[in-house]
Formats: sequence, structure tokens, C-alpha cells
Amino acid sequence: MGDAPKKGFDRAEFVARTARAQALMAAENLAGMLLTTEAEIRYFTGFHTLFWQSPTRPWFLLVPAEGKPVAIIPEIGAALMRQSWIDDIRTWPAPRPSDDGLTLLVELLAPLARTKQRVGLMKGHETMLRMPLGDFEDLTSRLAGLNFIDATGIMRALRMVKSSAEIEKLAHVCAIGSRTFAQMPELARARTPLDEVFRAFRREALLQGADDVPYLVGGADQGGYYDVISPPSARPLQNGDIVMLDTGVSWDGYFCDFDRNFAIGHADDLSRRAYDVLWRATQAGLEAARPGLSCRALFDVMKSVIAEMDTASGDVGRMGHGLGMQLTEWPSLAAFEGTEIKENMVLTLEPSLSYGDGRIMVHEENIVIRSTGAELLSLRAPPELPVI
Amino acid sequence: MGDAPKKGFDRAEFVARTARAQALMAAENLAGMLLTTEAEIRYFTGFHTLFWQSPTRPWFLLVPAEGKPVAIIPEIGAALMRQSWIDDIRTWPAPRPSDDGLTLLVELLAPLARTKQRVGLMKGHETMLRMPLGDFEDLTSRLAGLNFIDATGIMRALRMVKSSAEIEKLAHVCAIGSRTFAQMPELARARTPLDEVFRAFRREALLQGADDVPYLVGGADQGGYYDVISPPSARPLQNGDIVMLDTGVSWDGYFCDFDRNFAIGHADDLSRRAYDVLWRATQAGLEAARPGLSCRALFDVMKSVIAEMDTASGDVGRMGHGLGMQLTEWPSLAAFEGTEIKENMVLTLEPSLSYGDGRIMVHEENIVIRSTGAELLSLRAPPELPVI
Repeated sequence: MGDAPKKGFDRAEFVARTARAQALMAAENLAGMLLTTEAEIRYFTGFHTLFWQSPTRPWFLLVPAEGKPVAIIPEIGAALMRQSWIDDIRTWPAPRPSDDGLTLLVELLAPLARTKQRVGLMKGHETMLRMPLGDFEDLTSRLAGLNFIDATGIMRALRMVKSSAEIEKLAHVCAIGSRTFAQMPELARARTPLDEVFRAFRREALLQGADDVPYLVGGADQGGYYDVISPPSARPLQNGDIVMLDTGVSWDGYFCDFDRNFAIGHADDLSRRAYDVLWRATQAGLEAARPGLSCRALFDVMKSVIAEMDTASGDVGRMGHGLGMQLTEWPSLAAFEGTEIKENMVLTLEPSLSYGDGRIMVHEENIVIRSTGAELLSLRAPPELPVI
Repeated sequence: MGDAPKKGFDRAEFVARTARAQALMAAENLAGMLLTTEAEIRYFTGFHTLFWQSPTRPWFLLVPAEGKPVAIIPEIGAALMRQSWIDDIRTWPAPRPSDDGLTLLVELLAPLARTKQRVGLMKGHETMLRMPLGDFEDLTSRLAGLNFIDATGIMRALRMVKSSAEIEKLAHVCAIGSRTFAQMPELARARTPLDEVFRAFRREALLQGADDVPYLVGGADQGGYYDVISPPSARPLQNGDIVMLDTGVSWDGYFCDFDRNFAIGHADDLSRRAYDVLWRATQAGLEAARPGLSCRALFDVMKSVIAEMDTASGDVGRMGHGLGMQLTEWPSLAAFEGTEIKENMVLTLEPSLSYGDGRIMVHEENIVIRSTGAELLSLRAPPELPVI
């Protein structure tokens, strides 16, 4: 994998991200932004570890109105955080349930509370508070006067538009995903149990240069699958199956997210038709996507093609989403989303439809928005349902 | 892997878990328990999907005072949830930011609010609320009268003690981890870049029957490593390196969590001594662990051996923890933890120490508590630092 970009980011990336955040914060008169979630803390610091999988310890970052972010983190993370551009790193020997960072947070935020400042916190759609709710209630009562404001709009605006270094990583991981799917004829033969296909797919992705394959779901059944979020069964693939794998492969903390459909042995007519409709819906999306279009309009473009076969589609609520440090990010390609598409957004196009007796088919590509329109990051799926 | 237990659980397992929960809820006079997190919802339903990695959609389960749990979930999960023992499954076309399940929740909980009932919610240590904070604030204001009580103690009590079916899965995944580590002499040779060792380890674990390797961290450096939560660098292993890999391999939604240390080419005396102290600290823990002992006492047993070399140890706050559906679970083996060890708890013993110029060494085994004491689930590490 000699073509891999360099891992991590230059310090200038974090300086620029912080400056942009602070400009948006100033416009909303925020004295700081308190972050508790992996992607947000990594966004401003580069702090990258799988240790977040343990629910035991909370982690905090304050982006102040001016100057560098301040980290309040468990001592176990100090060595790694010291490798970042952050200078002010305050730690405690977590876990310490009686005081898991709260005293340090109160110390940092008390001056802002005394002057009744506004501090941003993620409260909106697709966010969560990653600390015990009881501790948060305690914190707010100890910081009476502090005005916690929803800062989701600020983080959304920052993270939706990718830097060139981010796009380079995303292109790289999408290429790894594409090379892995190219091996499917070897991995998914008739009589192979579906869970073994999953294992083989993960092994192949690692061989192709993935750091990890955190997300892999799919389905297989005669003439189409019924469910797109299941873990695999041990049922062997059979001639006449339609098999779909949907994967989030990761590299340096960035994800691809796309799927591929295959027919085993032969493809039934209805599944071939569903595939064709989805392929053309995606194609219409690819041709329409450009800066200035709304997410809703891009959704409508794909939906109008889907309507050839399924007028009720939309139970999954959307036909694509942002992609980056997380498998799914803002914005949604959905009827509710008025957000304007901008240059350097990275998106999935993901139309789906129901057909037959409740079968579902999904189809997904990953794109980056350039000034002139969409550029594919995933290798475009073939226009006809491939038969293995 | 012909020795794999069957995947999933019998319905009786969920019936028993729910009955135990309802008994504990009755003792605290709870009319229900509202759950939002993956492990808790899976615990009562068997609902198992990687789809939780997407932050887009919230998921809810109400465990009522009597009868089966009620699921309020995005439509995309309905097909999978219908395979569970749950009958009452209410869905909406998520994402729908204007009403992401809230109307359904209000409908379900309004009768309890009118009579000012107590409803459990996870608010305590090692928990989080997995829904937008703004939506939660909206929910509580629409359900004025409802009294949300911290139910962490109930979930802790339930999940800390494993069923025999759970222990079977944990034994299986620990065996996969052990077989994978047994291949380390093949995977971690001098001059192999550490990130390639990580890839090879993941591939080997899959070959050994793992569903996935969600967690893999480690370090390598001359005469010892400095950091135990980093992703791997591309630095090639060198003679004189101490290399440590710490992994959470998963199978059917259950984790192992243990690490192994190796010296490349030769081992320096100080690292050999650190390893010896840690091995004996673990051994002391293995011999002491039994029902009736407190977690604090087990911590003290290991700490007293560590004190031979490091009296300040404890910056990571604990020397082991519960293990099961998550990489780390309650309880902690720590000075703050008075919890009594019970039969059928599955625990990690994880002493660590600092030595030399800020180097750290960790050592970890996985055990199940039987009536007579600890039974190893991981294959015991050798008493002397192995040289590759």
C-alpha cells in the first residue's frame, strides 16, 4: 500500500479548525464549547484511540473563545494527549466515581459561570452527552449561572466540509473498500456460510491496507434479503441468493461507507429490476449533486427514480448522509434537510427500495463534492446486478 | 472452530433477565426502566447489530413493572427486532429530527407521568444517555410529573453476574484470543512495522474464529513502552523492544479483554523484573479471588505485590474490571469499589506499573468466579517475559 497518505495531520490543520470554531462561537457569543465525544475531541486535538470503547471514563475538551483547547482527561490518556498540539492537559486518576473530572471542570468553568457566560454543548440531532447524566446534573448545579447553549450547529458546520487532508484520507479508505469488494467473487461462493464470507471480507480488507473494519452488516436470501443491519447467520450461500455487504472500513480514523449487491449463480428478474432502478437512482444523484443544491433536492432526485418501483420508500428516512470521522455524519439526504450542499462535503448516496414480499435492496456510493459536481470516491458499482 | 457454542440465547434467558430486573425494580418501586444504550437493550431483547455505530438514530426500550419490554425503535430495525421475543415494537421513520421517537415515548409514558410514577434511567458511573440531550430535555418537560430515578444499581446488579450461557460465550472468545496470541512469534518479528503486526493479529483472530476485533491497542519501544492506548505506529520492531498488544476480540457480542508482553530478540533486566512483579501480582489475584471478597480487597492483594517495584501505581485508577457484552463493565477492582465478588462474575485481573523513565507495563488475564475461586478463561501468560 505504498500510495497511503501520511497518517495524522499537520498542526496547521488543528490551528485552522480551532480558528474556524472560534469565529462561529464569537458569532453566537459563546465563551467556550465543552465537548465530551470522541469525534469532536479528535477533531480539535488529533487524539485518536480505541480506548473510547470502554464506557468507564469520561473525557472533556473545552474550546475557549480564544487560545488553544484545554483537555480534562483521565491520567491514562495523558501520554497520548501530550503528543498533540494541546499544552493545557489536566488529568485525574480515573475511574474515580466520586469525582470523575468534575472538580477539574468546575475549576475551569467557574470563572465563566460567575459572569453568566454562554457555553456551547452538543444537544442536537445525532449528538449525545458522553458522561454520566447524574454527573452532568451535578455539574450544572455546581455551575449555576453558566448558560449551556446547543452548539450542534457549529460542529455541524465545521465537520460537514472536509479539508484536503481529510479528503485524501477518505479517498484512500474508499479505495481500500473498493479493492476489497473486487475480491468478492473469491470470497462469496455458493455453499460458503455467510458468517465466513464476513470473516473473509474483513481479512481481505486488512490485507488491502485497512486499519480496521468496524462496520460490516449485510444479508443474503433467495431472490433478495429482508434486513440490512443484521449480523451474519451461518446459513450457506445458495444459488439464487441475493447477497449484500455494507461496510465501514477505517483508515487513520476515517471511514468509507458503501455496499455492494451480488447474485449467487443466477439473478431473478425482480432483483435485477430493483438493482437497475437503484443504480439509476444513484446515477441521477451523482449527476445532480453539486454545490448550491439542497440535500432535500438531491433526495428528491433519487426518490423520483425509486418511485418507478416503490412509492413508499423512505422508511429508513433518508438516502444518504455525510461521511468522515464517523460512519454516518451530518447532513442527511432527506426530505427534512434543507442544508445546502457545499464544495468539499463528502457524502454517501444511498437509495433503497422495498420490493416483492417485503424484500429490501440498498445501493451506496461515496462521493466528494467538487466545484463542478460529484467526484466518486468508491469505484462505481456495475450497472447490472453482478452474478458470482 | 467446531467447538463454538450456539449463537444467541434461548427465550428463557430473556424471560429470566426480565423477571430479575422486575424484582429489583419492585424493590425500588419503579413503574418502568427506560433504556437507551446498546448493551442494555441487547441484554433484554437479544437485539444485536453494529448499526449502533451510526450516531444518527436513538433507540429506546421500556422494561415495565410487569410483562415484556416494549421497543420504540427506528423502522430500519423493525425486521431484526421482530426476530426477538419482543411483541410490542413501535417504530418511526428515523431519522426525523423534529420528532425522533419522542411522540411515541410520550404516548407510552404519559400514563405513568399522570400518576407521578418513578421510572428508572441510567445516570450513574460508566453509563451515558444515548439520545440528544435536547430531546431528553424536551421529553422531561412533556412528561412533567414523571420522576426519573437513577437505575444504574439495578443494571449493575443484573449484568455483573453472568448466566451459564454467557460464560460459555466468554470462555469461547477468550480461547480465540489465546489461540491468536499463541501465533505472536510468527506475527511480531524484528523489522515488522507495528501497524503490520496489528493487521496480522486481527487477521489471525478472524482465522481463529473471532467475529471481529473491535479493540486492539498496544505499544513497542526499546526496553519498554510508554503508552498503552495508542494506535500503532509504522515503526519497525527492533531487537530489544518490549512489545505489548491488548485486545478485545468479540464473538456473538461478547468480549475477551487481555494483553500479552513480548521481548524482541532479547529482554532487558528491568523489563524482565517488571514482568515478574506483574505476573506474581496477577498470580496473587488469581489465588485470592473468590465469592465474598470485596473488589477493594482483591485490588489490595495485587497492589501489595506491585509495591515491590512501584508504590505510586494506581494512575490508571484500577487493576481490573468486569467483562461481558462490553470490553469493560462494572465492577472495578479499585480502592473505591466495595462491591462484593460473586459467583459467576467474569473479571479481568489487570495490574500495571511504572518503571524506569516513565515506562509502563500492563498484564491482564480473564477469569470467571466459581464457588471455590477463580477459573482462568485466558490461557495463563508464561511466568517469564517471552522472547521472540
